[in-house]
Amino acid sequence: MEFKKVVVLGGGVLGVQIALMNAYTGHDTTIWLRSESSIGRAEPRIAHFKEEMLKSLEESKALIKNPMGGYLYPRGLVKVWEGTTEEDINKLIKDAKINFEKNLHLELDINKALKDADIVIESMTEDPAAKIELYEKIRDILDDKTILVTNSSTLLPSQFKDHTGRPEKYMALHFANIIWKNNTAECMGHDKTSKEVYDAVVRYASEMNMIPIKLHKEQPAYVLNSLLVPLLYSAQTLWAKEVADPETIDLTWRLATGAPAGPFQIIDVVGLDTVYSIQNMKPSSKDPNSIDYKILNMIKEKIDKGEKGVAAGKGFYDYSK
Amino acid sequence: MEFKKVVVLGGGVLGVQIALMNAYTGHDTTIWLRSESSIGRAEPRIAHFKEEMLKSLEESKALIKNPMGGYLYPRGLVKVWEGTTEEDINKLIKDAKINFEKNLHLELDINKALKDADIVIESMTEDPAAKIELYEKIRDILDDKTILVTNSSTLLPSQFKDHTGRPEKYMALHFANIIWKNNTAECMGHDKTSKEVYDAVVRYASEMNMIPIKLHKEQPAYVLNSLLVPLLYSAQTLWAKEVADPETIDLTWRLATGAPAGPFQIIDVVGLDTVYSIQNMKPSSKDPNSIDYKILNMIKEKIDKGEKGVAAGKGFYDYSK
Repeated sequence: MEFKKVVVLGGGVLGVQIALMNAYTGHDTTIWLRSESSIGRAEPRIAHFKEEMLKSLEESKALIKNPMGGYLYPRGLVKVWEGTTEEDINKLIKDAKINFEKNLHLELDINKALKDADIVIESMTEDPAAKIELYEKIRDILDDKTILVTNSSTLLPSQFKDHTGRPEKYMALHFANIIWKNNTAECMGHDKTSKEVYDAVVRYASEMNMIPIKLHKEQPAYVLNSLLVPLLYSAQTLWAKEVADPETIDLTWRLATGAPAGPFQIIDVVGLDTVYSIQNMKPSSKDPNSIDYKILNMIKEKIDKGEKGVAAGKGFYDYSK
Repeated sequence: MEFKKVVVLGGGVLGVQIALMNAYTGHDTTIWLRSESSIGRAEPRIAHFKEEMLKSLEESKALIKNPMGGYLYPRGLVKVWEGTTEEDINKLIKDAKINFEKNLHLELDINKALKDADIVIESMTEDPAAKIELYEKIRDILDDKTILVTNSSTLLPSQFKDHTGRPEKYMALHFANIIWKNNTAECMGHDKTSKEVYDAVVRYASEMNMIPIKLHKEQPAYVLNSLLVPLLYSAQTLWAKEVADPETIDLTWRLATGAPAGPFQIIDVVGLDTVYSIQNMKPSSKDPNSIDYKILNMIKEKIDKGEKGVAAGKGFYDYSK
């Protein structure tokens, strides 16, 4: 199985980043969009992320002589950091511009978009009904050879496999935001995914400069969020119980584990809106006597004040200075 | 409140390290031991940790030009790392030898040991009955001024306050193993601890080169273990469910959070025995159909093979090479 033509369904924040990473790594990439108005929304987003990726390459020059460079460089953009020179980065920037122009296409016609696709990455909204509708719409258009993957963060592929018409060629491939730095790709099949397809998707992830994280079984929240969510929840519980301040909790974590960021610094990066949605899904958050209710409301209070995290300039910490 | 004379009750692994850190930082330090045979056990332990601390200082010289030095140096031994020279470290080693000799005393007579103590650090076994017996034995011997703290990892001070005869001068001060590198000191009072005493203990922690972690309320497991235990448990759950391999789980964590070690690397440092005891305390670990039972047995299997972690040369990873 070769991965020449890649199709991304959806031009959202993640869809656009996935498409750009594919174009950057030399894949013929098509973003399928539903309507003219989706194009209107996707185009500035594409321009924004192109610029961010190029800026990230530019800024990585300053890391060449920085001892922390080996930790901070954009892993998705510079495959091997050791020995990279300014000249190498200039070449990457030049090639990136060419590749973005040459390899990235937008398409409204679903038939044209899917034609001859090697892999189709569904990156639509997290709405099961909408996903099923889309899968049923494309199942008879897809080429026989086409592998279909979902970038869903919260839903399991087994829930959809029977709607795809190709369960053995369907699985999850989950990317992280700021894909050119956070280049993990969690590979998760369901019980009917063929081993050949799974292995091919793992290989494809490497080909687009991702580090494949192999899951042997379905797991809601994959590996990363299965670890991260409980840590962030424990930290919020200590905060809501008024055991210690966020700064103290973060300091303890950094000192004891050597991690560069404590849980509240991570929450600021993830965004308080996301943390709020996760907390809001818990039934116990509805019970006014529970600590979960208290956490939910303490997070909401911060969101209402606009303290939504790094992107908002303020969260648990102030980033405006 | 001044902290000139420090008394450590107990000569176990932590007691000895706490006493040595106090001697190192210029405190007149007494370890009270119950019997001649306790002295026999404590003396080689003291010799061992003295040597470890001196070795750690010696090895820190190699970190001076290492870009990671600022993360790896022994924080409890070198108060300010920036700008430290080899000469400074030689001076610290010389002073350490003098301070260990001059400041550290062993004492069997409880009356002599406690006389005129500014702070008494109880670092006995985690047995509530034994702690109560000890507190009741010393309550009338202690000077009026003496502050009493417990280094207990798992028990709350409120449980013992009424046995101390000085609830307002009693609280928890919790140290970590390898105290001269992991220099957090979690400060936790109960509802009757006076603010003055709490603040004085926080100051004392700084005086012995610790970083005080201020808890505003009692919390079982303090801050660090309240965060760490759920993370390690989530990782063990993924492993027991066969979702992913320990290496993959660790890789995901390191890549996504920038931490130097993943959860199984941390478990190897903590030791599988400790992780086993924590898991064994859960009622659900007794239910053969539960994932907790499976985790318990998977950990036990490794312990039975001698794979207890870094200290054993092998755990989830091999350290023998």
